[in-house]
Amino acid sequence: MITGSAEIICVGTELLLGDILNSNAQYLAKQLAHLGISHHYQTVVGDNPLRLARAIAIACERSRLIIFTGGLGPTPDDITTATIADFFGVPLVENVEVLADIKAKFAQRDRVMTDNNRKQAWLPEGADILPNTQGTAPGILWQPRPGLHIMTFPGVPRELYSMWQTTAVPYLQDQGWSNGIIHSRTLKFWGTSESGLAAKVNDFLQLENPTVAPYASDGVIKLRISAKADSLNAAEQLIDPVAKQLKAIGGVDCFGEDDETLGNAVGRLLIEQAATLAVAESCTGGGLGAMVTAVPGSSQYFMGGIISYDNTVKERLLGVSPQDLVTHGAVSAPVAEQMAGGVRARLQTDWGISITGIAGPGGGSPQKPVGLVFIGVANQTTTWHIECRFGHRKSREWIRLMSRNTALDILRRTLLSNPQTV
Amino acid sequence: MITGSAEIICVGTELLLGDILNSNAQYLAKQLAHLGISHHYQTVVGDNPLRLARAIAIACERSRLIIFTGGLGPTPDDITTATIADFFGVPLVENVEVLADIKAKFAQRDRVMTDNNRKQAWLPEGADILPNTQGTAPGILWQPRPGLHIMTFPGVPRELYSMWQTTAVPYLQDQGWSNGIIHSRTLKFWGTSESGLAAKVNDFLQLENPTVAPYASDGVIKLRISAKADSLNAAEQLIDPVAKQLKAIGGVDCFGEDDETLGNAVGRLLIEQAATLAVAESCTGGGLGAMVTAVPGSSQYFMGGIISYDNTVKERLLGVSPQDLVTHGAVSAPVAEQMAGGVRARLQTDWGISITGIAGPGGGSPQKPVGLVFIGVANQTTTWHIECRFGHRKSREWIRLMSRNTALDILRRTLLSNPQTV
Repeated sequence: MITGSAEIICVGTELLLGDILNSNAQYLAKQLAHLGISHHYQTVVGDNPLRLARAIAIACERSRLIIFTGGLGPTPDDITTATIADFFGVPLVENVEVLADIKAKFAQRDRVMTDNNRKQAWLPEGADILPNTQGTAPGILWQPRPGLHIMTFPGVPRELYSMWQTTAVPYLQDQGWSNGIIHSRTLKFWGTSESGLAAKVNDFLQLENPTVAPYASDGVIKLRISAKADSLNAAEQLIDPVAKQLKAIGGVDCFGEDDETLGNAVGRLLIEQAATLAVAESCTGGGLGAMVTAVPGSSQYFMGGIISYDNTVKERLLGVSPQDLVTHGAVSAPVAEQMAGGVRARLQTDWGISITGIAGPGGGSPQKPVGLVFIGVANQTTTWHIECRFGHRKSREWIRLMSRNTALDILRRTLLSNPQTV
Repeated sequence: MITGSAEIICVGTELLLGDILNSNAQYLAKQLAHLGISHHYQTVVGDNPLRLARAIAIACERSRLIIFTGGLGPTPDDITTATIADFFGVPLVENVEVLADIKAKFAQRDRVMTDNNRKQAWLPEGADILPNTQGTAPGILWQPRPGLHIMTFPGVPRELYSMWQTTAVPYLQDQGWSNGIIHSRTLKFWGTSESGLAAKVNDFLQLENPTVAPYASDGVIKLRISAKADSLNAAEQLIDPVAKQLKAIGGVDCFGEDDETLGNAVGRLLIEQAATLAVAESCTGGGLGAMVTAVPGSSQYFMGGIISYDNTVKERLLGVSPQDLVTHGAVSAPVAEQMAGGVRARLQTDWGISITGIAGPGGGSPQKPVGLVFIGVANQTTTWHIECRFGHRKSREWIRLMSRNTALDILRRTLLSNPQTV
């Protein structure tokens, strides 16, 4: 197996201007990980021959496989192929096969081929073609020096994907680049902090295979377990015992793996307990229902809900007491409880959950600041609430996100601790 | 004005594994362009001190402003601050002010501060704090050598955005980094295709200052107008006449600018016409209401809605005919119309809009494929529907996104063509 590491160089001024997200780098990163090829650096550089040449010089010193994307097009600012050839002191030669292919593609589409397009048939002498069935620009597969591999791809994602799968993967396997894989599983947690969880699992963070790394996004705390092994199966076997131990440490805070959301976790429990759910939302405006129904098959347990944005809707459709709305205000414990109980009764479900809060930016006061949210929960026998303070300086978007996730998490913990089968 | 260029270094093994998209690099790239600061390279490196140090060495030679994101967290794999200090041979010292701030934040949230978090208060001697009001990890502003500026930010996007706007921008302007600006305005369109719009505005795509570029994301077609000028005001003056012409060409398809959504556009029209709105949702599960209420101040016109996921809810809460549900099915024109009319009547609003469709992946049939969606609209005098086919091979997420945007767009066009003031 080849032991050096790979490097990705993305060429395009549009990346430096922030016009586009660098999704190609993410795609290639995932693909390399899947093949077990480590890569330590990604570089983005503009459509500038001098700076691209400098990036190539740096990459040659630290990597043995350099993967380029972008800059293969027909216009004058597409400089990748010429700059690579120039860097290694090799001339470009017109490839008859590629030229015929480009001509055929233009004929097929009934379009006139310009002189610009001819340029795409000029490849470094000695380089192999990396065929592009989706577009006119082919890439190259080239070893300009012993032990240094170069691959080029267009910046158009679907062309890159197709060329990667069709030609690059077999080539890399054939050349001995891929002899194992890196596989990851992510455990997801709610109700803990990144540092709190890291402290609890500190010993695991020192492991070498699999490795364990904590991170956080949108309030969800994650532990990523990554194993390097010969096969997916072998990687899973390295991951399984570690995942089991981490879940035991995380306890009830751990709600799922990989793509699972709190919506999936709640859905699974409701199905197990053959229970149904309805929601009543004020400040989240329907976002809680949208999260629940993002899960395919949620119609098994989710009946629907009432978006009671205006107080008259709270009164008329949910039966909230007008007196309580006056005395305690719409953002209060009694209103949250009556919303949860009301939606449960009207939609005839086992569970009702509600959210009423101040998402901001306006509407806060010293007594009831922005970020104050009451979450109500009701079942057949009882109704209760939780008071949350998500921070008066946080954005409307964040407060709404935290509200709907917290509401689902409260229901999840309740279902876990009081399993009821109907 | 300082003439050197900037470089972005994103630190995080999750980027090298392809676990996340590098949206921070795009954000910073846009922001640098906005300030007229050129940047020629972006580097991504993992949570590895040796490789990060090598990336810093390379960046110091070619750039005069190095912006780091990621690796400021409390866990052992967060190595950015220590590696930078070590590279420049400067010790880390505990910053009393930062420590007090972290302690206060933990106290506020009623959480226990761990020893891990203390680490976030250790900064290179002589570095200034780049305050973080959204999280515990501050960044640094530092000139480790004359003429070399360093800034560090956490990897959490909302913390980065807030720190950039609040502290980094004034600092860069103050230090003479920004002396001209590139300013952009984006016009947003719905109901046209990217190539169709590009063909209509082809002459504008050749302009040099401002430039005009078309792109698309999440079904919204955009034209970005970018001007380079000495001041924001001068840039706006270059943009204004072009924007006006492009809007005239786009006509009713153009719904807003920059951060405006279809929710903002509808909200503005409802306020102008002093009209109120209610929604009835099936396959979007509350997502339409969430979109309407993402707009601050939407309580002026949005009363609420009914999430009628289950057919019993459609019947009982919206008054949909059980016979029509049997004869035509839940995803049908009569049901969409009765949902819109029903929610309008029950919530006593001027307008009612409804969505019922098959979001998939299951539930499709040859007669009613995945992606078939009916949108209903009701006002005081009339009720009608639109039938949409968003594609049977599209994802659940895409179909739900297109459904809620299309529903809002239909209401927007209706309000534009039939202005009614109450």
